[in-house]
Amino acid sequence: MFAYEFLHGFTQNAFLKMGCSPEDAHVIADVFLAAELRGHSSHGMLRLKDYYELWKSGRINVRPVVRIVHESPSTAVVDGDNAVGMVAALKSMQIAIEKAKNAGTGWVATRNSNHFGIAGYYAMMALKEDMVGICLTNANPLVAPTFSISRMMGTNPVAVAIPAMNQPPLVADFATTPIARGKLAVAEKKGEKVAYGFVQDLNGQPSDDPSILKSGGSMLTLGGDRLHGSHKGYCMTALVDIFSAVFSGANFGPFVPPSVAYLPVLEKKVGEGTGHFFGAMRIDAFQPREEFLKKMDSWIETFRLAKPAEGQEKVLIPGDPEREAEEFIRKNGISLVPAVVRDLEDIAGELGISFK
Amino acid sequence: MFAYEFLHGFTQNAFLKMGCSPEDAHVIADVFLAAELRGHSSHGMLRLKDYYELWKSGRINVRPVVRIVHESPSTAVVDGDNAVGMVAALKSMQIAIEKAKNAGTGWVATRNSNHFGIAGYYAMMALKEDMVGICLTNANPLVAPTFSISRMMGTNPVAVAIPAMNQPPLVADFATTPIARGKLAVAEKKGEKVAYGFVQDLNGQPSDDPSILKSGGSMLTLGGDRLHGSHKGYCMTALVDIFSAVFSGANFGPFVPPSVAYLPVLEKKVGEGTGHFFGAMRIDAFQPREEFLKKMDSWIETFRLAKPAEGQEKVLIPGDPEREAEEFIRKNGISLVPAVVRDLEDIAGELGISFK
Repeated sequence: MFAYEFLHGFTQNAFLKMGCSPEDAHVIADVFLAAELRGHSSHGMLRLKDYYELWKSGRINVRPVVRIVHESPSTAVVDGDNAVGMVAALKSMQIAIEKAKNAGTGWVATRNSNHFGIAGYYAMMALKEDMVGICLTNANPLVAPTFSISRMMGTNPVAVAIPAMNQPPLVADFATTPIARGKLAVAEKKGEKVAYGFVQDLNGQPSDDPSILKSGGSMLTLGGDRLHGSHKGYCMTALVDIFSAVFSGANFGPFVPPSVAYLPVLEKKVGEGTGHFFGAMRIDAFQPREEFLKKMDSWIETFRLAKPAEGQEKVLIPGDPEREAEEFIRKNGISLVPAVVRDLEDIAGELGISFK
Repeated sequence: MFAYEFLHGFTQNAFLKMGCSPEDAHVIADVFLAAELRGHSSHGMLRLKDYYELWKSGRINVRPVVRIVHESPSTAVVDGDNAVGMVAALKSMQIAIEKAKNAGTGWVATRNSNHFGIAGYYAMMALKEDMVGICLTNANPLVAPTFSISRMMGTNPVAVAIPAMNQPPLVADFATTPIARGKLAVAEKKGEKVAYGFVQDLNGQPSDDPSILKSGGSMLTLGGDRLHGSHKGYCMTALVDIFSAVFSGANFGPFVPPSVAYLPVLEKKVGEGTGHFFGAMRIDAFQPREEFLKKMDSWIETFRLAKPAEGQEKVLIPGDPEREAEEFIRKNGISLVPAVVRDLEDIAGELGISFK
């Protein structure tokens, strides 16, 4: 088990050594560790090596000038200057929040960015401002539209954070596919099959093979097949792509650049880097502050009282599992698998910093 | 087969006779017929009787004063004064568009409204203004959250319309459940079973019985079960409810009033009427107009070229099926089932207007 502070300090040191400013290194570490705390280790320390390798191959800018390139009273487009995704995303969400202070809502589309960790981190920034926060991003193409076998979209997550008064905030943060990419990797390593409905083979036949992406297969959209509503999942994943890339001027769909250095830079570009989309909505732009917060309490309490199905303990509110994970991990520490520890030791060795 | 103009005129006459203003009657007819044209007859003439019965029982206001009750530069809350849903929704979307003209985006939450037909109609209003349009609404509770057997949410649709240049606009308009409520009714009438993954029985066991809602069953969220991502569907359906009701001050979740007169008015209220949420986003608040439109063309053309799976003809863009339906129906007329024709004849008789 590792302490939160230890891994936070190590991550910060690593990015400092790569050349990031202290402020940027701090934010990057914050987002990596937020993923661990919330139980989404697929977006935590496991990914540090990918970021490090991208930096080593000169594919990421550690001294970016993140700036607004277009704006209106409630909107902005931000150019991330090929920054580490967290740096472009933090600044973008700050701009959305500032816009909302004046206009009631703020909406920022960001281009020329990279992988930014967990979307929920940025959505949750709005909470302390008494705002609703929204964050979307596109991602490397692995997912086929309904009726297709082409990998056209990422697992494009949606995060929405809504403040309440006495209840904890509602935080929905989910890939728009049935499962995240990382869960396939875990099953593959364990030599297990996965359920049908997650992936298909290169001809579009149902598959339970978690390594099928290596042989031309693709991931399916939420719903799984047309009969069960996969066209609605396709709509969601596609909308996240369009808001992230068409609104911002980033690469869309199959042209989103790889977030790992072992995949080559794509030949064709249709925009700049990876795209994100951020929203901040002042709750008092809709209801008096107290009324909004009380009504969210009432919504959450009503849904907590929904009757569980046979064999189920309780009905969850979006954000409950992550909050429970955080309580556990703050008490018990962060567990890393041996392969990740070895990666971090290697990075420490190469950068000449300490890992212990 | 019925001509578009005939049914439009009849619907308009019916609402005029009920006491609506000519403008309101026109809008209501427009939305009813838009559902027929787009191939969503479940939201078309089939529903006229429900509206008529609500009016007969004095549960709907045909002379409403729809007005803004709260606002900021980019937002407004609208009180629908218990109007026919179309009347409150049209005005709300017009306000969102006006807000967007000044602030770049406009966001309107509407309370004290009723069933409003197809969400896509209002989202598409933004297209001719070179804006992206968004429309959400909550609806009568039939859907259980993941792990629950309580009917807590409606089939809460999402509609998003995005303009393009030479390509037709992308219009996503979908209930956030695997299937719409109406499809269960159709299967039931035909005496057919439905696929597993749409409904569960009163204990939460999987069911293929389309009439299960009558014996305490409930509809499932997109994904079907937890393994296949139903918690993500639950997040979406819940978010639509919160945006429609908490932002506006309408009834949320299990307290959304029935949209049919044969169900009694609910005893408990947590707000006013049904809630909707509307968004309008000027495309030039993000990109120069031409660039945005060209990039949407490029997005659509790229996705049209996705390789179809074995046995599939082509990959669809959201909005394609509705556009194809509209072409067919404009040429061939609108087909109504005998039961609907009888309903319309009865209404014509009672209101003293002609149906032929």
